[in-house]
Amino acid sequence: MAEAGRHVAVELIRAKRDGRTLTGDEIRWLIAAYTAGDIADEQMSALLMAVFFRGLAPAELRAWTAAMVASGERLDLGAVSLPTVDKHSTGGVGDKVSLVLAPLVASCGAAVPQLSGRGLGHTGGTLDKLEAIPGWRAGLSAAEMIAVLRSEGCVICAAGADLAPADRKLYALRDVTGTVESIPLIASSIMSKKIAEGTSGLVLDVKVGNGAFMTEITAARLLAQTMVGLGTEAGVRTAALLTRMDIPLGRAVGNAVEVEEAVATLRGEGPPDLVAVTLALAREMLALAGIDADPAAALTDGTALDRYRRMIAAQGGDPDAPLPRARHVEQVTAASSGWLRRLDAFAVGVAAWRLGAGRARKEDPVSAAAGVLCLAKPGERVEAGQPVLELRADDESRFARSREALANAIEIGPEPPAAAPLVLERITG
Amino acid sequence: MAEAGRHVAVELIRAKRDGRTLTGDEIRWLIAAYTAGDIADEQMSALLMAVFFRGLAPAELRAWTAAMVASGERLDLGAVSLPTVDKHSTGGVGDKVSLVLAPLVASCGAAVPQLSGRGLGHTGGTLDKLEAIPGWRAGLSAAEMIAVLRSEGCVICAAGADLAPADRKLYALRDVTGTVESIPLIASSIMSKKIAEGTSGLVLDVKVGNGAFMTEITAARLLAQTMVGLGTEAGVRTAALLTRMDIPLGRAVGNAVEVEEAVATLRGEGPPDLVAVTLALAREMLALAGIDADPAAALTDGTALDRYRRMIAAQGGDPDAPLPRARHVEQVTAASSGWLRRLDAFAVGVAAWRLGAGRARKEDPVSAAAGVLCLAKPGERVEAGQPVLELRADDESRFARSREALANAIEIGPEPPAAAPLVLERITG
Repeated sequence: MAEAGRHVAVELIRAKRDGRTLTGDEIRWLIAAYTAGDIADEQMSALLMAVFFRGLAPAELRAWTAAMVASGERLDLGAVSLPTVDKHSTGGVGDKVSLVLAPLVASCGAAVPQLSGRGLGHTGGTLDKLEAIPGWRAGLSAAEMIAVLRSEGCVICAAGADLAPADRKLYALRDVTGTVESIPLIASSIMSKKIAEGTSGLVLDVKVGNGAFMTEITAARLLAQTMVGLGTEAGVRTAALLTRMDIPLGRAVGNAVEVEEAVATLRGEGPPDLVAVTLALAREMLALAGIDADPAAALTDGTALDRYRRMIAAQGGDPDAPLPRARHVEQVTAASSGWLRRLDAFAVGVAAWRLGAGRARKEDPVSAAAGVLCLAKPGERVEAGQPVLELRADDESRFARSREALANAIEIGPEPPAAAPLVLERITG
Repeated sequence: MAEAGRHVAVELIRAKRDGRTLTGDEIRWLIAAYTAGDIADEQMSALLMAVFFRGLAPAELRAWTAAMVASGERLDLGAVSLPTVDKHSTGGVGDKVSLVLAPLVASCGAAVPQLSGRGLGHTGGTLDKLEAIPGWRAGLSAAEMIAVLRSEGCVICAAGADLAPADRKLYALRDVTGTVESIPLIASSIMSKKIAEGTSGLVLDVKVGNGAFMTEITAARLLAQTMVGLGTEAGVRTAALLTRMDIPLGRAVGNAVEVEEAVATLRGEGPPDLVAVTLALAREMLALAGIDADPAAALTDGTALDRYRRMIAAQGGDPDAPLPRARHVEQVTAASSGWLRRLDAFAVGVAAWRLGAGRARKEDPVSAAAGVLCLAKPGERVEAGQPVLELRADDESRFARSREALANAIEIGPEPPAAAPLVLERITG
């Protein structure tokens, strides 16, 4: 049986390798057999590399995604009476949007079931950030998740092991086999989890720029179109915004520092770029949920902040507890006077990662207190010697390698940078 | 260390995937780390699939092949005073050339160190054939091999585990991951073993046609050129012949039946196509060895047969022992009268395999007695009802599936087929 399966798998690898289109039955067998352990990692990684080169036709991609959904449980949010709508970001530097957006949209009348992940590499993860709050728990059972969603209108938690287990296994394999950067594989990974989550609506924030996974707008657009198509075909109302990620979003990059900035934003004191992206996404979510409300008001009248505090408390967190503070602080100063023209998102992300805010391996812990504060942002004037970045770490030895990452991160010139829009494109089904 | 290795491996997979040329150091590290078990199968299979799509640049291929040679011992044939020259065939149906060629060329004054393999799928293996001879041993130590080579001038045996162990491991992985059909990977696999074997000269028989691994002459030519280049650069005088493999070579396909046909050929009673291919290869080998002799004479005066008998005996075999006979025989007859125009090599190979002559898995045993005799060959006249093929098996239940493979194998028409050359091209360094 295992031997027969191995032979079938070789035939399907060769078929995909040679550009033939796999049938729905073949794809369902592949995903189910891999999830069950009947196909070995070395066979699946060869198939994934063949997919990297050959792509997946639309029907193949639909079958692949549906098979990943079918590999586990699909959540039933029928007990939630409000319209459900979620957001997914492809990840950026300083991207704490979820922390603000979920309570904001909930305060406008939708229910936001936000299953989130952890950071890996230079981009942070929403769960790592919220875990800076004493007592807060990312791991909820499906029943707990639905209970928080019903009582508070929003929940941010980890996906359970039952949700698209094929994706969990495939993602771990892709990570070590150089097969992450494939649009159909990325799209099916994201969308299988979101479809299995049971949300009725979904807004995708596809970030574009050197601090994002997608550095080119053409690839980002294709990814967004692919995901919107998959969601729509699976009965999830889906839209996407392409947003700029060449400078950090807001001023804080790390875990506790991003929670603080999110709370300030919920108090109506957020940095303008973070507020603008959050409101643009909130309007998309409310439109998909069929709710006519102005989210901007909820950021200034305290209703969104109240939702946030209730959500944190419902998951065991103390919204009033002081957050961890780093033991060591250093500054990076402006080398000359002039306009800050560029603050490289990727470099700042790597710097924060090296300070301890991120992890190189899934098993690594992260430091809640480590991170980078952007004291100046592009478009602001700086004087020589003025602090531009503040680096925070629990472990002093981390500063040196963090600074190395920042060697070419700051550009100061005689002219201000050209203005550029934050929201680049809007893609709907 | 293992973790660091895994990260480096991912970077190299991504580099190859994205079309960058790997350095010699990178390739040496990859092959050594994989052989040592520091790179996991799933990483190597992804790399192999990337190589399938991206190929290997000449310098990469040289480094890859040299690293495979360096993964084990390189035989020292310095104790052999005669010029050494070997032959490698990419495999065909009824290809018992090695059994005739090694003693033939030895009888003309060269030393032939022939490391051979076993059959897999529809093509047979030289070792499987010779193991039909009672007592004959394929497994010799390096010292035993050199002793037989010195005393008899030729030896046919299995490659030791120390010879290019990287290739052994890579080949097993390629077999289950759909990465066999890559010209640089095939070329490095063959040539690493032949370079490690220590021969001074090498003639490659690259077979072309539906019974061969390469069905297209353009791919066969590229493979031959690649291998001749690798051999020449490694100091092995190398030449290649492209030879036709769309009908079985000779009349016998199997193990014992091919030994019998080889012995008949050494007696001067061989089928003309087998004799012609064998003599063409012998002339190339003698030219590389710098020997001016007519191999045709040695096939009729008994000197090549004598060499064969001495070689078999030196490896424990009894050249006079009767060979195993199949318990069951069936015939396939001509459906109409006319000229036999086509006798499909692939179909006959599969039929013999299904009768028990070949194996589906490396672990399977083969039947010494099973096989197919081609009672008529293309270019001969047949009458309706006349036997064209004789099928032999130890197990009667095997005939049905064997016959299925032959459903469209025989074509009879009113005109004889056009004559076609057996040796298609000659490629030298």
